[in-house]
This record gives sequence, C-alpha cells and structure tokens, in this order.
Amino acid sequence: MTDTQPARVRPARRGPERREAICDAVFELLGEVGYDRMTMDAVAARAHASKATIYRTWPDKPDLVAEALTHHFGGAPEAPDTGTLRGDLMALTNFACEMCNSADGEVLAGVVTAAARNPALGRTLRECVYEAKHILHETIIGRAVKRGEVDPNLDPDLLHEVFHSLVLARRLETCEPLDEAFAKHVVDDILLPVLTHSAR
Amino acid sequence: MTDTQPARVRPARRGPERREAICDAVFELLGEVGYDRMTMDAVAARAHASKATIYRTWPDKPDLVAEALTHHFGGAPEAPDTGTLRGDLMALTNFACEMCNSADGEVLAGVVTAAARNPALGRTLRECVYEAKHILHETIIGRAVKRGEVDPNLDPDLLHEVFHSLVLARRLETCEPLDEAFAKHVVDDILLPVLTHSAR
Repeated sequence: MTDTQPARVRPARRGPERREAICDAVFELLGEVGYDRMTMDAVAARAHASKATIYRTWPDKPDLVAEALTHHFGGAPEAPDTGTLRGDLMALTNFACEMCNSADGEVLAGVVTAAARNPALGRTLRECVYEAKHILHETIIGRAVKRGEVDPNLDPDLLHEVFHSLVLARRLETCEPLDEAFAKHVVDDILLPVLTHSAR
Repeated sequence: MTDTQPARVRPARRGPERREAICDAVFELLGEVGYDRMTMDAVAARAHASKATIYRTWPDKPDLVAEALTHHFGGAPEAPDTGTLRGDLMALTNFACEMCNSADGEVLAGVVTAAARNPALGRTLRECVYEAKHILHETIIGRAVKRGEVDPNLDPDLLHEVFHSLVLARRLETCEPLDEAFAKHVVDDILLPVLTHSAR
C-alpha cells in the first residue's frame, strides 16, 4: 500500500458482530501482552471500535475480560457421561489437562495470576469461569448419586474445590506435565477417595 | 537532620551480619514493592551494601529471594506431635492458615504469583520453600504409619501435594477466609479420606 492509496473504509460494525470483534481483540491481547499491560486503547484499535463504545457496555477492564473469556470458552462444556464416576472424572481431568497445555491455557493462567493481585478481576473471574463449571460438576455428582457410587448428601462443590486446586497448583507452581499419568493420579489417589469415602 | 550535618558513618558489615542485613532488606522490599519492582539497587541501598558484594554471592535475583525466604522462615517448622493423625493435620493446617493471614503470607503470595510468570524464580522457590516442608510431611506420615492409621506404602508427597494445592487456591483465588472452619473442612473432608482410604 502506498501513501497515495485511499484508506480502506470499514463499514461500522453493529451489535453481535461488534461484540465479537471486541471479545476477540481482548482475548488476543491477553495472550500477547497479558492483563496488566492490556489497555483500552489497544482493544479499541484492534477491534476497530471507539473507546466510548467499549466503555458504555463494559465500564471496567475486569468486566471486559470476563465477557471475552465467556465468549471464547462459551460457558461450561457438556458433562461427560461414560457410565461410571471414574470414567467421568478421567474425562473431566483429561479435558482440563488438554486445556491447560493449549494456548488458551496460557491466556487463562495469565489472567489467574493477574487476578491474585486484583480483587475486582478475581471476583469477576470466579463468577464467569468457575461458577459456570458448577453445573458440570453437579451433573457428574448427580449421576454418581443415582448409581449409588456417592453419598446423596455429598456437596458437588467438593469436586470443584479439590479438582480445581490440584490443576491450578500443577499449572502455576510445578513444572511437571499435565498428562495422562497426572490425570490417573488425580482421579485414583485423590478424587475417588474424597468423593466416595462417605458412601462406603 | 540539616544539610550541614555530616552523614553518619556506618561501619562496614561483615559475614553473617551483612548477610542478615541483605536478607532483611530483600524481605522488606518484597512486602513493599513486590518481586517484579524490587531492584538490586534498592536492596543494596537498604542493606548499606555494595551491589558488587550482593552479586558476588547471589548472581541472580531468584537466588537472593530464596536466601531471604530461607533466612526469614528458617527452614521447616517442627512437626506437630499430638498423638493422632487428625490432631497433627489440624495443627499443620491451622499453622498454615495463620501464616497465610499474616504479613509474611502477603509477601509469600506475591512471590508465588511472580514465580508463575518466572520459571527461574519458580524452581528456586520450590527448592527452598516446598522441599524444606518435605521433612515435616514425612514425619507426620511416618508417625501415622507406626500407629497403623495409614498404609506403610503411602507416599508422603501426597499430603504435601493435596494440602499445598488447597491452601494455595484458597489464598490466591477465592476471597474466603483461611480459618478454623476451613481447616476442619480440609482435614475431615479431604486429607483424612485421601491419606487413610488405602489403610481401610
């Protein structure tokens, strides 16, 4: 392109298309520069949107990041239904390991560490990412209750808490791989004993 | 102090006293400005030491932080010995909760989140803080094996992994308190089932 060539005119984006462009810009920038260094100016430039438009819908940076994560990950994945609690837990853990090892996992790890230093981002992140997972864990535990594998009074949040803590610590702190061997260890040595001990 | 007053001459510090001054300076600065913004210049100024002296002994910033943490926390605390596995685990968990709630916990949380973005710091941190705890967990599990409360083949690292992950996630991610109720939940709902299930 030369200086004399006229700038290409972009048609104004509206509604869902504009939201998608903004969410994609946020997600890309989170991966490239991280939460702390991502500015509203950069988001606006990348999404070809005005800052006023962005601020009108998402007044705060944490809101914008929550929107982008929800858009990108699209709520909770469908609960695995293998016919046994062990099978469901293996599917859940393998899925989480794959996610952690992907480029998406890198972005999410960056947001989680930023959230540790930013309470507003932390609250938003818990609401949008972790609370969306609640239904998934409730479904897995509900099916196990029906099969008599776990106590009907078991709180599904216990699965969420233990599972999430183990994967988070492995991802953020140890340099050890999130692989099939780790998934088996989590399920057989930790999750199954925790979830089934009161049913025995 | 006025401009005309002569600067107070400090005697040069040697050996252990100098090491202590440097470690204290590092720990204070970690609390005040965090790992990323702590500079060797600031450490040297605070400790009244030359940068050359510091670099000679601790060529990298992670080494210096490891030294300061080891100096401050003084290795692993003595293992609790209450006569039961449950009693020992409650003492361990209450101690960790108190630490997390203190100013020291704030400094440590800052270093842990910095380590998630800095592999060299992460490796050093694991060696100095977590591996020092290994003896503590081995002692607790060893006593429980003698009392017949756990399987003699149980890997003490399982206690370390589960305990550490739960406390870390609670401290970094949820805004919920690290209190007596949390300690009871960790011990009764998670640690005891995980550690004792293969002995039953």
